[in-house]
Amino acid sequence: MRTANILLVGDELLNGTRRDAHLPFLAGALAGAGVAVRGCAVAGDDEASIADIVRAHARTADVVIVCGGLGPTTDDVTREGVARALDRPLALDEEALARLEAFFARTGLTLYPATRRQAYVPSGAETIPNAVGSAPGFLVETGGCRLFVLPGPPRELQAMTNDFVVPRLRRVFNEAPLFTRTFRTAGLGESALAALLEPLYGRFVMFRFASLPARGRVDIVAAAAPGAAIDTSWDELAAALELELRNLLGPALYGTGDVTLEHVVGDLLAGKNMTLAIAESLTGGYMAKQLTDVPGSSRYLLASVVAYADEAKHTFLGVREETLREHGAVSSAVCLEMAEGARLRTGATLALAATGIAGPTGGTPEKPVGLCFFGLSWEGGADIRERVFSGTRADVRERVANASLLMLYEKLIEET
Amino acid sequence: MRTANILLVGDELLNGTRRDAHLPFLAGALAGAGVAVRGCAVAGDDEASIADIVRAHARTADVVIVCGGLGPTTDDVTREGVARALDRPLALDEEALARLEAFFARTGLTLYPATRRQAYVPSGAETIPNAVGSAPGFLVETGGCRLFVLPGPPRELQAMTNDFVVPRLRRVFNEAPLFTRTFRTAGLGESALAALLEPLYGRFVMFRFASLPARGRVDIVAAAAPGAAIDTSWDELAAALELELRNLLGPALYGTGDVTLEHVVGDLLAGKNMTLAIAESLTGGYMAKQLTDVPGSSRYLLASVVAYADEAKHTFLGVREETLREHGAVSSAVCLEMAEGARLRTGATLALAATGIAGPTGGTPEKPVGLCFFGLSWEGGADIRERVFSGTRADVRERVANASLLMLYEKLIEET
Repeated sequence: MRTANILLVGDELLNGTRRDAHLPFLAGALAGAGVAVRGCAVAGDDEASIADIVRAHARTADVVIVCGGLGPTTDDVTREGVARALDRPLALDEEALARLEAFFARTGLTLYPATRRQAYVPSGAETIPNAVGSAPGFLVETGGCRLFVLPGPPRELQAMTNDFVVPRLRRVFNEAPLFTRTFRTAGLGESALAALLEPLYGRFVMFRFASLPARGRVDIVAAAAPGAAIDTSWDELAAALELELRNLLGPALYGTGDVTLEHVVGDLLAGKNMTLAIAESLTGGYMAKQLTDVPGSSRYLLASVVAYADEAKHTFLGVREETLREHGAVSSAVCLEMAEGARLRTGATLALAATGIAGPTGGTPEKPVGLCFFGLSWEGGADIRERVFSGTRADVRERVANASLLMLYEKLIEET
Repeated sequence: MRTANILLVGDELLNGTRRDAHLPFLAGALAGAGVAVRGCAVAGDDEASIADIVRAHARTADVVIVCGGLGPTTDDVTREGVARALDRPLALDEEALARLEAFFARTGLTLYPATRRQAYVPSGAETIPNAVGSAPGFLVETGGCRLFVLPGPPRELQAMTNDFVVPRLRRVFNEAPLFTRTFRTAGLGESALAALLEPLYGRFVMFRFASLPARGRVDIVAAAAPGAAIDTSWDELAAALELELRNLLGPALYGTGDVTLEHVVGDLLAGKNMTLAIAESLTGGYMAKQLTDVPGSSRYLLASVVAYADEAKHTFLGVREETLREHGAVSSAVCLEMAEGARLRTGATLALAATGIAGPTGGTPEKPVGLCFFGLSWEGGADIRERVFSGTRADVRERVANASLLMLYEKLIEET
């Protein structure tokens, strides 16, 4: 299998002022050319560090991609670092200079002398045109390794990867794309899932499995194991795996690929011609925000009332003042009236509601931070649950929103 | 200066299924203990790679932090990789096992046999308690380097860094924090800001400046330039810089440090004893969610009505059916009635409203995707604006929410 190492260059990555997004983009793009990323390093804007890492990276992979540090200012030293690693001088590329001059003429910007540095590449390098910015990239072959050097701005890096790097690697390597499939689960913890799936993993050794917990859900990623010999297609194997996962997990396996639980719930609602209303308190709009992230959610989501103040619970949802007084806003009784009020006032088929104490303050011995009531109302019935969620204010809000959405999903599945 | 190298472990980082957030967090946290991050590497879940990088990292820095791969499943091999690098066997830590058992008893989860692996650490290591999850971390000293190994889930890694790693490094190194200050701006683009501030940067050469655009706002980070000799304190220099920035930027400089615009707006509302209501359509709860991210926001936020369907705009906000019919839901007239309805029905001092077309579908030649009306209502007045925002569905929602919040901020400032 063809392999790649990535070098990300920039002081801002090491001092915490920028979060990298190049590595996941490049991993996905290279997988499409059958190339697996095996290592990644981050270097500051320092010629010696860049040179050291480029040398080490080029010895151990078929492809090296260096990102960033090709700008016009004096702290941009990637060209120099790569030239030092290759032991080749930088030389002016006349064609690159002409393109640079044309870019500045076109955009009406001033071409300062310092910017001309961008037209210098290690001798023998092939320049890579930059359709959306000024700095060209370049490609050098060294000891069987193809070394691509690309500018850091995401639009430029992505365009040059898609238009030059990937087509070039497809042509020279002629590899099939790497196979990977994601199975999405909700409602089971990572440990419980692992215990349930361990025997299955043992029978599907042609896959490497990764389990990715995120926001109370767990994704299982099955990737073609390096060097695995198979006597059928990856798609057939993935279909067999999915069947077994469905048997083991039931509705907890809510989808595959890029789908989200919000999408699945939305499709179920739309497919059944059902509508939804939400009554939120501590989640402050997060439940509605997640559901409306899905394009077309206006087909089934009628409204969400974020009734933060007690008066708003009464005014907008019809929660009785007596119920608020007797049970308090964080109670099963109020949650039920919120859900019923949202459903009846909008005419929705179903309504979700949640009330609780997000923290960090506001808890009491009887009603601690994290205490939440959440649930569903439908014509002729309701189901309100009580949980104490742990974590920060953001964690509690996220967890109760996830638990509510999962209840809705289970209700929709059960009715199928 | 004390230095650190970071090793991020996980196949999911190399195959593109997860984007790292640990490096920026750790860089910021370590800077607080006077430690600068000098290098970072990413390894897959592979014992030999982890061992190789740990060995190389420990030779060249005072501190090494290894993140991830301490979970209960067989692909979690960070413990083994680190033990191999140190040439020490893994041994059961009885205290860690007791804490692991207590954690599972407390949370009511099942402690599977495989999970007991988490209580094994290289012999001679000090375990680091995990207050929010199951896997303990550990600290080993090797050849003058302090090697911290932490679990990958962000909540756990962050808590252990703040509660254990940073206090320990402060105690043993006793270094002053690396100086850095963040100035937060809203309402000006990155290029406009750069043009405005370039001359100022030239007079404050003891700082290195970075401009970080995020979600329609731009942060300016001033960090002590490496090796800069100063004849006063960094705090005084930062105060002088802030004064000049305030003169140049006015209220567009809304805060410094960790503060968010939501915090500033909330403090202004609370300080004036004012209350707020929101009427949202295309933002689907995002405006309320942002404002309620702030602890204590129940002091001023009364309610938000996410009136997605036309009927909901009428029922909950009193938007007239005639207005909806004549102007359509995406119109200045409906936006105004939404804002007034939210204000009058809640009794709030101010109300924000936004309606528009988030896309990707639903646009027409007269009302294209991205068209938004947003604004404010107060007793005796209102201000509704029209904009066409570009970008994806998520971009449009974020941009109109930001623009609305900025209007609210400007209104609150103007009244001071």
